[in-house]
Amino acid sequence: MTSSYTTATPEQEMLNWGRLILDGVPYADLAAAHNRPASVSWFDHWMRTASKYEEAAQAAADAGHRQSAGELFVTASLCAQYAQFLWFDDERSRGQQRKVDLYRRGAPLLSPPAERFDLPIDSVTIPGYLRIPQSSGPPPVAVLIGGLESTKEESYRFEEMLLARGVATATFDGPGQGEMLSTTPARGDFERYTSRVVDHLVGDARLNADRIAVIGRSLGGHYALRSASMDARISACVSWGGYVFADDWDGRTPLSKEAWRYVSGSSDLDEARIFVEQTLDSRPVLDGLRVPTYFLHGALDFVPISQVDVLKSCAVNADLTVVVEPQGDHCCHNLGPLPRLAMVDWVTEQLLGRLEGRA
Amino acid sequence: MTSSYTTATPEQEMLNWGRLILDGVPYADLAAAHNRPASVSWFDHWMRTASKYEEAAQAAADAGHRQSAGELFVTASLCAQYAQFLWFDDERSRGQQRKVDLYRRGAPLLSPPAERFDLPIDSVTIPGYLRIPQSSGPPPVAVLIGGLESTKEESYRFEEMLLARGVATATFDGPGQGEMLSTTPARGDFERYTSRVVDHLVGDARLNADRIAVIGRSLGGHYALRSASMDARISACVSWGGYVFADDWDGRTPLSKEAWRYVSGSSDLDEARIFVEQTLDSRPVLDGLRVPTYFLHGALDFVPISQVDVLKSCAVNADLTVVVEPQGDHCCHNLGPLPRLAMVDWVTEQLLGRLEGRA
Repeated sequence: MTSSYTTATPEQEMLNWGRLILDGVPYADLAAAHNRPASVSWFDHWMRTASKYEEAAQAAADAGHRQSAGELFVTASLCAQYAQFLWFDDERSRGQQRKVDLYRRGAPLLSPPAERFDLPIDSVTIPGYLRIPQSSGPPPVAVLIGGLESTKEESYRFEEMLLARGVATATFDGPGQGEMLSTTPARGDFERYTSRVVDHLVGDARLNADRIAVIGRSLGGHYALRSASMDARISACVSWGGYVFADDWDGRTPLSKEAWRYVSGSSDLDEARIFVEQTLDSRPVLDGLRVPTYFLHGALDFVPISQVDVLKSCAVNADLTVVVEPQGDHCCHNLGPLPRLAMVDWVTEQLLGRLEGRA
Repeated sequence: MTSSYTTATPEQEMLNWGRLILDGVPYADLAAAHNRPASVSWFDHWMRTASKYEEAAQAAADAGHRQSAGELFVTASLCAQYAQFLWFDDERSRGQQRKVDLYRRGAPLLSPPAERFDLPIDSVTIPGYLRIPQSSGPPPVAVLIGGLESTKEESYRFEEMLLARGVATATFDGPGQGEMLSTTPARGDFERYTSRVVDHLVGDARLNADRIAVIGRSLGGHYALRSASMDARISACVSWGGYVFADDWDGRTPLSKEAWRYVSGSSDLDEARIFVEQTLDSRPVLDGLRVPTYFLHGALDFVPISQVDVLKSCAVNADLTVVVEPQGDHCCHNLGPLPRLAMVDWVTEQLLGRLEGRA
């Protein structure tokens, strides 16, 4: 499983051009990062790139160009995200905070705006954003769940696809993610945090509380399965490059293992391995999955394809749509827009029926 | 001027990843084209890629997923465009027709739809598309003019930026371009064709006839300057990588020269050179340019930077905004989204004032 991930540098190991470009990182900046002088670190290069976009965003905002300002703050935030996502020291905290701040400045300028929410749970808060498209009635909403090193600020392009089809979007940081990491490391009951967000959404009269989907990517696809299994208010589920349980520790890259150590607050990799293998297991709850569920898997993923069979054997009460892309890598990022569009259209159809086609 | 264009293959010579990706060609497909087997021609590879998107588009349309269907037909059309843009024989005609047909199938599915028009002029017709955004009153409109091997089907992403800001878009094929090529080779009076399109737009009560801009890219930037100089109904002009007159024949690549021969209907390169040097000269008309004009130039362009001075010395009655990007290539395609956003915001401000910011 590891052969294609035996590479020389951290960025070769985890960098996926398909992912970054589809998420909105400009190709020109990826090429420049790739060709940067050896004396400039990956982190510094991307933080400078973030500054370039931050300056352009502020200039656009000052000139009254809201649309560009919003998009450029998001782009700046993405650059800060990818500056830090390979680091697990103080640089990471600095990059994370920059990402958070840059996105927050852009949020009210987006169209529709991203409305910040902070939801109390236990003694902490769940931070997130809600975007509601113009619509003739209260629209359905998709709750987006990020993965091991992704956060609520990363899904702008995916949100745009849903919004264009009349679906509102809610993103949040759960345990081990983004702004929650400092108070709440990764834990096994992620579904409690999803449900807290759902509490918030069903209380918003602008939304159709009967039509709520969860869409999770990578590790978020694991959380999505778990959340939909344990909260009956969720009416559709997408697991995008996710898995039922984590049985592939040895197949993960060194940086992926390090990321696990970091997000779980483990003191070393052995402890992280125990956390992953003992905590990330949704087999016991999957009989509670009773809603239409879309499972996208790339056959070239490091996530074992055996998880497809595990899902089928455990989620016996769900209407499963399983898509295995023979040439797809993790989350099928290497396949361009088609797998994402298919997911978005599937979830739109679950939430809105075929209204789009009848329009 | 020629050193950086001395390359081994046609696609290395003219292929610009920055351009293709910003115009909407998926990165995954560019990478696949780059890594294709040596036995598969560039043309065949892209025509197959067009088929992949055509099939996905038709499936989406059949399922009632209009948004995806429209976007995917456009993507298929772009693939056919880039299949043929390096060829100047029968393959080109086949690729051109495929591009036209694929876009035409997607046009009514776009949001807003692209409405086809065919405008009689002399004994031929000018084909084009009009897209009108939702708006509280009749919106202004930008007329987009393509370059040496670009056509009305190529500007979807750029149109989306304008539409998001409340500006309608009109694209068309003029002499030497796309569907007009077979009846009307390139000629010196391109402005007549722009004005025929403007006739059509001012007759459409859904549009604000007092607010019409022209935006031309590359050779289209030459045509835009000429059109705005000679039609007083045009109230703003953008020349994006354009020029006043063509004095750089020797600096052009072999394929660029071949493209000139092709679009001008010349029998050989000598005839093409004479056409270019004698016909493409807007110096005599630029004193008629009396509207705000944005001129974007990349200092690394093969178009000589001396054209900036030519513009300034000839367009003495225009309010010029000249932007020279020190690291920009032709049309600044290598600089990512910033130069395009700046142009779009500039033209939006000319057409709508600062309404965007006051909203």
